[in-house]
Amino acid sequence: MIRSQSLSLQIPSQEWKAPSANPVLSPATPVLPSTFLPVQVPYDVPEFQRVSISGDYCAGVTVDDYEQAAKSLVKALLIREKYSRLAYHRFPRTTSQYLCSMQDEKWKVEDEVYPDFHSPPEENEDPYNLDDAPDNLDYVIKIKGGIPFVYDNKEMMELNEPRSLPYPDLETYTLDLSHVLALIADGPTKTYCHRRLNFLESKFSLHEMLNEMSEFKELKSNPHRDFYNVRKVDTHIHAAACMNQKHLLRFIKHTYQTEPDRIVAEKKGKKMTLKQVFESLHMDPYDLTVDSLDVHAGRQTFHRFDKFNSKYNPVGASELRDLYLKTENYIGGEYFARMVKEVARELEESKYQYTEPRLSIYGRSPDEWLNLAKWFIKHKVYSPNMRWIIQVPRIYDIFRSKNILPSFGKMLENIFVPLFEATINPKDHKELHLFLKYVTGFDSVDDESKHSGHMFSDKSLNPDLWTSEKNPPYSYYLYYMYVNIMLLNNLRRPMSGQVTQGVMTLNSEIMTVRADFGIRLSKSPVLQYLYYLAQIPIAMSPLSNNSLFLEYSKNPLREFLHKGLHVSLSTDDPMQFHYTKEALMEEYAIAAQVWKLSTCDLCEIARNSVLQSGLSDKEKQKFLGVNYCKEGPEGNDIRKTNVAQIRMAFRYETLCNELSFLSDAMRTEEISTLSK
Amino acid sequence: MIRSQSLSLQIPSQEWKAPSANPVLSPATPVLPSTFLPVQVPYDVPEFQRVSISGDYCAGVTVDDYEQAAKSLVKALLIREKYSRLAYHRFPRTTSQYLCSMQDEKWKVEDEVYPDFHSPPEENEDPYNLDDAPDNLDYVIKIKGGIPFVYDNKEMMELNEPRSLPYPDLETYTLDLSHVLALIADGPTKTYCHRRLNFLESKFSLHEMLNEMSEFKELKSNPHRDFYNVRKVDTHIHAAACMNQKHLLRFIKHTYQTEPDRIVAEKKGKKMTLKQVFESLHMDPYDLTVDSLDVHAGRQTFHRFDKFNSKYNPVGASELRDLYLKTENYIGGEYFARMVKEVARELEESKYQYTEPRLSIYGRSPDEWLNLAKWFIKHKVYSPNMRWIIQVPRIYDIFRSKNILPSFGKMLENIFVPLFEATINPKDHKELHLFLKYVTGFDSVDDESKHSGHMFSDKSLNPDLWTSEKNPPYSYYLYYMYVNIMLLNNLRRPMSGQVTQGVMTLNSEIMTVRADFGIRLSKSPVLQYLYYLAQIPIAMSPLSNNSLFLEYSKNPLREFLHKGLHVSLSTDDPMQFHYTKEALMEEYAIAAQVWKLSTCDLCEIARNSVLQSGLSDKEKQKFLGVNYCKEGPEGNDIRKTNVAQIRMAFRYETLCNELSFLSDAMRTEEISTLSK
Repeated sequence: MIRSQSLSLQIPSQEWKAPSANPVLSPATPVLPSTFLPVQVPYDVPEFQRVSISGDYCAGVTVDDYEQAAKSLVKALLIREKYSRLAYHRFPRTTSQYLCSMQDEKWKVEDEVYPDFHSPPEENEDPYNLDDAPDNLDYVIKIKGGIPFVYDNKEMMELNEPRSLPYPDLETYTLDLSHVLALIADGPTKTYCHRRLNFLESKFSLHEMLNEMSEFKELKSNPHRDFYNVRKVDTHIHAAACMNQKHLLRFIKHTYQTEPDRIVAEKKGKKMTLKQVFESLHMDPYDLTVDSLDVHAGRQTFHRFDKFNSKYNPVGASELRDLYLKTENYIGGEYFARMVKEVARELEESKYQYTEPRLSIYGRSPDEWLNLAKWFIKHKVYSPNMRWIIQVPRIYDIFRSKNILPSFGKMLENIFVPLFEATINPKDHKELHLFLKYVTGFDSVDDESKHSGHMFSDKSLNPDLWTSEKNPPYSYYLYYMYVNIMLLNNLRRPMSGQVTQGVMTLNSEIMTVRADFGIRLSKSPVLQYLYYLAQIPIAMSPLSNNSLFLEYSKNPLREFLHKGLHVSLSTDDPMQFHYTKEALMEEYAIAAQVWKLSTCDLCEIARNSVLQSGLSDKEKQKFLGVNYCKEGPEGNDIRKTNVAQIRMAFRYETLCNELSFLSDAMRTEEISTLSK
Repeated sequence: MIRSQSLSLQIPSQEWKAPSANPVLSPATPVLPSTFLPVQVPYDVPEFQRVSISGDYCAGVTVDDYEQAAKSLVKALLIREKYSRLAYHRFPRTTSQYLCSMQDEKWKVEDEVYPDFHSPPEENEDPYNLDDAPDNLDYVIKIKGGIPFVYDNKEMMELNEPRSLPYPDLETYTLDLSHVLALIADGPTKTYCHRRLNFLESKFSLHEMLNEMSEFKELKSNPHRDFYNVRKVDTHIHAAACMNQKHLLRFIKHTYQTEPDRIVAEKKGKKMTLKQVFESLHMDPYDLTVDSLDVHAGRQTFHRFDKFNSKYNPVGASELRDLYLKTENYIGGEYFARMVKEVARELEESKYQYTEPRLSIYGRSPDEWLNLAKWFIKHKVYSPNMRWIIQVPRIYDIFRSKNILPSFGKMLENIFVPLFEATINPKDHKELHLFLKYVTGFDSVDDESKHSGHMFSDKSLNPDLWTSEKNPPYSYYLYYMYVNIMLLNNLRRPMSGQVTQGVMTLNSEIMTVRADFGIRLSKSPVLQYLYYLAQIPIAMSPLSNNSLFLEYSKNPLREFLHKGLHVSLSTDDPMQFHYTKEALMEEYAIAAQVWKLSTCDLCEIARNSVLQSGLSDKEKQKFLGVNYCKEGPEGNDIRKTNVAQIRMAFRYETLCNELSFLSDAMRTEEISTLSK
């Protein structure tokens, strides 16, 4: 009977104290012992029917297994919190409060770390103003063995005395990684997580049955705001595919009609007009159709990631991809910029839709960043409705085999040295400094089902010595990207008297930040439960998955949403996967139709997408409410989000309930050994 | 072995002769007896892999059952053909050719009957020109017992000598009806049809596997035409719901902002401004949202047809429905007309989308038609991208119980007498004559799952005597609507020296014309197979069904399409079921995504929708090709439809194959008894 106490609804108040042991009372069950008193709910929320369970809550798991699982999960959460904190990434406040309490520490709002993205310029400000770069710090940067070191000056570098920054410790990292990997495979933990996840799903079903009408009632009486005018961010979309196939086709035809005689390419030293390019391909743009363009994912692409990539070549011709979908070409990426801007204008008109398109940095040469920044400024690509993510394809092996790169270390240098220099000495790198204000994150892209033979450990060769033609494994890529971004953010975060230059996030697995797609999650209950507890953002693209991997109705989005994972909807690739002009709305509409999602579900997903995005604090306050950093109903402004407070309370109380279970298990033993 | 001969690919040539008995040879199976010689295919089609089966084709059914089933099916087809012909409705040429051959008659193209819809005005013509009405015929019309009689003049009426027209014979009709009903329930026929339908589905799967790439190759090399610029008709959509919820909301807000002080309603003799209307509802339009509007189908509408209908009241207020969604109100239906015209402008801009919105005629009073015509002309609602369907709700019982109508006969009079008068004496009814040019059909609407206690037969009371408060059954409604439309079309069809006034179709079950939704079809193999053989148009709305009856992925659309039924996609009700501005594209996109339809599938559906629609012969020639009346590849112009010729050949040869089976069974006996 003692176990029943952990059914307690322990809701952290603003002044966080140790969780109370007063369990919530289900009004319909008045025969419980007198210790079951209703908890004082510290927030206003309309009446709704709460689901609570009494009796032994770890039924099906032995007490030993339960305690072992809880201990390991808490350790994993502490690891996640540590790495989030170091890199200025967001970690949920509620989970953090519970972790503090378990360690008998006092949680303080001042200690909280969150990503501090750059605020976009005001309407009367020039988004391309190169003159507001802060003063140079004149530090010196050197990447050694893949790890960046920052020195006050050249002398200190020669003395090998770097500035005091949280340099990483590869041994600790690999130890932490091995803990997480062992946890994922641990039988009892799997069972425990599996049961908790099933419970979460069933609990939501009950909640939905009981409160659906009350939630909708809240929304109906919420003035002015509905699903159409809540903000939505397309959290995963490739810039080179952000226009749909019809848009691309129309643009190609338009350029051909208006400027056939413009010189647009150079082949073997010979300049070619647009007309000549099409002649050389034996093509008349008038005849071109979306079928002959052949950039849309057909049924042939299912399970064929290789074909998927070749779909980026219009009419199968890499010439057209180079001309229309690249930032670097004879016309300085003008066509591509024009199309991206057309997409941006549509978003600005729609007013409520934002997007985070991805541009590629390959690490082939140190000039890539500057070229990208120049493209951005020259063609005035800025839009208030867009923030930029940099995707780094994991194709070192290809560059190495073509002898473009001598080592993996050189690739890292090409990717990160320009960023450090623009951050340290912005006055010397005004263009890149400016562009980076609008860059909010990194993504590492490739087919994740590909396996590498190598197992990453502290014995692995360091990047400078990684000169073989073999591609390093995913975890290796991620570690070195994480380390560089972590240090970079420590330099970019607001320093005394300075405004933030805008931090960047890294999208990837449990150790770092955001997961995209999340398909692999459905196979690992432990990882999935950790994603739940740490509320790790997951950007899902069921239409894209539908074409590539997984039938639409089998996509786990609905299941994840029900369990309370932090999911958002994204298009990934409107050129290949969408039919209408409003790709993101198409994505939401299909999800709503196929899974019969309620308006509240849709608005919850939209709210998640804003939280997950790289929009600035100011924008998030405007779109979600001034208290958006708080969790639960307090952090929600229904007038802006159209998410029912009942839903918010359910999510919040459910998360607290799950965390209390871990907390109860930990009380019996000291966990000081687990803390950093 | 003798049965194998009916595998013959009997393709009717232009000069139709008795089907040849030369079966087609699959090139990959050269060991067949020498009688298997390749047939001369009379049309050009790219090489593709044909599926043919040798051996006994009625395996699983005894020869007796097969012959009995074939006989009954042929009889049902002859019935269908007879009623189509009488009412100037379309019957497929191929099926007709086979039926002729079975009766040893010679099929002649001149004998073919097809609906002769009115051609829309040219661009320089005035669509509202009231002065081109043809001369009055000065006939006299009288509906007696639900049957219209046309007399040369009053004297002939008094002599009771009507003009020679194909007046119906209730006894024959009920006999035919009972044949069809018995057939649907007949065990051996069910088995036979079930097996044929399964065969059709598997055959398509094979075809798809073998020829998918060849079909797509045809489309890729088809210049200028793709899925986006083939014509599509929304074949089933309610005018009062043709704008989506966001559009309606925006329109309401706009009127409130621009004309709050306009008098828009009269309540108990008191005139009310728009502002007062909203005040009386305690509503500020600024606060209005799609949630509070509450016109979208939620999860609560599933299996609740009653709720579905109440969704037409914005904010649950019938005042707003009357003001914004009706043609008859204080402002003469101006708001409704303006919204419909906004939808029309979007269609015209999109250029390739057409729609057939439904307006209601209730039969409460004889003025309804004139009011509708006046509304149409006053607000200039004509659009080249719209044709109008009249829906007649089957709610006699409601009107009778409120004593608005004395009998069912009076309701029929209210609905049809104005039509006959405008047709016979157009100069006296210029407004209605003009409006009718753009009306292309009727639909009878209600919840078809409702059952009536009465069984229609020639013993049923005639409409003038049907004075009880009970609603007549569906078949009773349909018979009298059919009879009236049949006679009407006989008057409206081009007579010597006269241009057609445009015929009208009736959407309903097997005996008459078009089936909408088709959900009930999936439960009746016999009906389904007859729909296949007679290529009866089926307009399906999976998104609407998804909200009302049937989960999306379980909708039979994909299965029907594969089997070769004549399906089109329609939105039914964008206000309730769609999210984006492009409702029809949303419908196509979701079908494409959920069922992974190919471009060829989508274009086949689009082509079907044009064929099914009330667009004129001239438009169909322009959108489908000049030979669209021919069937098979000959009738298809890929440059206009983007449907692969391989697909057309497959469909055509498959239909011929199915019809040959029936034909073979009939050869053994005389069928002269079956013919009319």
